[in-house]
Amino acid sequence: MIETLQGLVGRDHVLTGRDMAPYCGDWTGKYQAEPLAVVRPANTDDVAAVVKAVAAAGGAIVPAGGRTGLVGGLMTRGGVMLSLERMNRIHEIRAASRLARVEAGVILSSLHEAAEAEGLYFPLWFGARGSATIGGVLSTNAGGSNVLRYGSTRGLCLGLEVVLADGRVLNLQSELHKDNSGYDLKDLFIGAEGTLGVITSAIMRLVPAPRAHATAMLGMARLGDALDLLNRLQGESGGLVEAFEFMPASYIERLVAVRPDVGAPFAGRYPVNILVELGATAPHLAEAGPDGQVALTGLLEGVLAPMMEQGLIEDAVLAQNEAQRRALWQRRELAAEITFAKKPAIDTDVALPLDGVEAFLTGIAARLPGLDAGASDLAVAHLGDGNVHYTVFPSREDAALSDRIVSAIEDVVQDLGGSFSAEHGVGLSKKPSMARRKDPVALAVMANIKSALDPKGVMNPGKVLP
Amino acid sequence: MIETLQGLVGRDHVLTGRDMAPYCGDWTGKYQAEPLAVVRPANTDDVAAVVKAVAAAGGAIVPAGGRTGLVGGLMTRGGVMLSLERMNRIHEIRAASRLARVEAGVILSSLHEAAEAEGLYFPLWFGARGSATIGGVLSTNAGGSNVLRYGSTRGLCLGLEVVLADGRVLNLQSELHKDNSGYDLKDLFIGAEGTLGVITSAIMRLVPAPRAHATAMLGMARLGDALDLLNRLQGESGGLVEAFEFMPASYIERLVAVRPDVGAPFAGRYPVNILVELGATAPHLAEAGPDGQVALTGLLEGVLAPMMEQGLIEDAVLAQNEAQRRALWQRRELAAEITFAKKPAIDTDVALPLDGVEAFLTGIAARLPGLDAGASDLAVAHLGDGNVHYTVFPSREDAALSDRIVSAIEDVVQDLGGSFSAEHGVGLSKKPSMARRKDPVALAVMANIKSALDPKGVMNPGKVLP
Repeated sequence: MIETLQGLVGRDHVLTGRDMAPYCGDWTGKYQAEPLAVVRPANTDDVAAVVKAVAAAGGAIVPAGGRTGLVGGLMTRGGVMLSLERMNRIHEIRAASRLARVEAGVILSSLHEAAEAEGLYFPLWFGARGSATIGGVLSTNAGGSNVLRYGSTRGLCLGLEVVLADGRVLNLQSELHKDNSGYDLKDLFIGAEGTLGVITSAIMRLVPAPRAHATAMLGMARLGDALDLLNRLQGESGGLVEAFEFMPASYIERLVAVRPDVGAPFAGRYPVNILVELGATAPHLAEAGPDGQVALTGLLEGVLAPMMEQGLIEDAVLAQNEAQRRALWQRRELAAEITFAKKPAIDTDVALPLDGVEAFLTGIAARLPGLDAGASDLAVAHLGDGNVHYTVFPSREDAALSDRIVSAIEDVVQDLGGSFSAEHGVGLSKKPSMARRKDPVALAVMANIKSALDPKGVMNPGKVLP
Repeated sequence: MIETLQGLVGRDHVLTGRDMAPYCGDWTGKYQAEPLAVVRPANTDDVAAVVKAVAAAGGAIVPAGGRTGLVGGLMTRGGVMLSLERMNRIHEIRAASRLARVEAGVILSSLHEAAEAEGLYFPLWFGARGSATIGGVLSTNAGGSNVLRYGSTRGLCLGLEVVLADGRVLNLQSELHKDNSGYDLKDLFIGAEGTLGVITSAIMRLVPAPRAHATAMLGMARLGDALDLLNRLQGESGGLVEAFEFMPASYIERLVAVRPDVGAPFAGRYPVNILVELGATAPHLAEAGPDGQVALTGLLEGVLAPMMEQGLIEDAVLAQNEAQRRALWQRRELAAEITFAKKPAIDTDVALPLDGVEAFLTGIAARLPGLDAGASDLAVAHLGDGNVHYTVFPSREDAALSDRIVSAIEDVVQDLGGSFSAEHGVGLSKKPSMARRKDPVALAVMANIKSALDPKGVMNPGKVLP
């Protein structure tokens, strides 16, 4: 097999043994992949040839992007890890059409830079953007901090190219904003975590870059007031809220402990810390007025002021320039680092109806001590999407205990009409949740589709479906 | 079979013979369905029971909504037409969560009214809204005039309930804005035109109702200038263009001929007539200033004025009130009536890259006389989406000639990277186009999915897939 693969992509691009080490770890520290080989194709033809050869030999393909996933999606024993890192060309940015044609291995921050050079923005933004790739964000339907305004990855993709489990190339490339010619295959491959095929290239939507941002960190007492603030801001601005992130006091405390160099946003301690950002493309909001103030900033201040007077907002820091803006964001973007600095950790990624976030936090806080008196927790949320990254640090490494804690979290989520996976996907780590919580008919339909498109189980076997 | 169906839904709700007549026609006049019976279930259990019974008997189910489709999607000889008209309950409008839980038989305009009563808007808008149903717009992924701002039906749906081909009920109901728990089944059933299952209920997104509109009809000489205007308006307003509709001079002429009571928008004749509408929810744009003018109107006039001075816009009518606004819209919404008033008609619904609309119209105008010297044509376009409804009136009823004309249209569209179906779907009438123009691998994958989910071919057989 190794020789066959070397013949297809060249000896230098088939890694084995110790050369594979950088590909086998995992951010969460929970998984250690043991691939047969790591193969680095140069183009779609290479991918198709490799998939055909592996399928013929009865093997498995595990597609890999920037390897920043959090659910063990790249775990394998004996599969061929297909790293798309060499397929990193940005074919074109078409500013007038607001789109980018890219290969799957393009790193997210590279696309940010290429778009910015054209006065545009690719509105998918999260901490791992310097490593995550377009193929990866498509395969997991990644979310992040701007979903509130621009949607998840699925909504940002116009067209795809996919290599199927038998090596055929499926051409769903399209620049069109409307296309009702048959079933929506594109959205089936997006979010399938490599279990239905390998995404090799894509046409992504770009948006006009905001000409101005207004960014603030707010200290508040109650989550309900924060949601009220979000609604007021959306109403007054006409939907210009780009991010609305929630960090409880315990998050700020861990931030200060792990990264004292960064520190707390306020001298005081507040139960609810909100990072809010508005973005404006319209000149009448983005330009400075006669008083030197940008209208968007005035709009934000205009909503904050009465809530500060009423004591609903207790403290506030407004970014006065880009450096201050980045400093506010850094406190939010260190979430992964401060979460995985402590072990053992049980990380979850739950979605709730917007008005269910507080009930979720209250509900799980009531149950956790009964499951593990020595446990602590950490929450950080894309509050505007109802998406909470909730992590429990149990008192001991104990698989049965972990499972009871995860199940208790799922109970609370399910009672509120939520989902056990908001944006990280299922991979390996959430398969038990899929089995327990997903509609059985939905699971059966997914299994039917998997069998129909990958009857031999070549594509990332053992992931997503219980 | 009839007795079985009567036993399931009651004698009054199984129509046969002449009672079926209102269900069997077709707006286009091309199809006359001959169902075994028209069955009107009261709820999801009824639908499941009917599907099970029909599947057991080896029959076919043809789901029907408001029957306003344009591609023969309800055509059947001997199938059971399942009309969801009795399943027309709006279970709830949750204003704070901006969503509506509705049954599939709810008429689009009923949802408009229910949302409006809560200060919200369901942003799917087209001429047939008084008859089309939620189940129908979901099954065809309907578009319309507001796609530019709010997206197609797919983007407006949060959750679904579907009865599968074997009668199982698939629960994809969700109010969540993020949910990555497995494959995206929802978007597979949306736009499947009833060939994979029967959509029985849905959770739909609502948006804040615009507090102000600014609406104008413009007479121009060139399409390129119109696209330039669109870009300027999007830039100045920050993306507030809700509709940007194009009607050529020939459209206005037919409008005047068919509906002289409505008449032309201008005394003069212009090659390019544009209906543009901006909508604002932000108070700073929606409220009248000290001069009595709404800021949004001022913004529109501010973009139009220099283009009028330069002669790029030759005439303009701005709606001064809601009645004038509706009068401008009526000229656009009579498109279906004036198209189908003349027969024979070959109607198409093509999507193009935004900058390809002019090339399409020029390209087909050059080819049409060579195919049929006596043919005339009619175009009307959602220009902001690159979606042209292009109709040819051939000199004679001749199937082979029709096919040559359709194929020529497809040639021009394909050369420009477009699609033969933008928003009307495939149904029966565009199956030849699917066979000729769709990626063969995509067709094979669609057939695989159809076989996996409906192995006995119960659901709307003979539609969509060649």
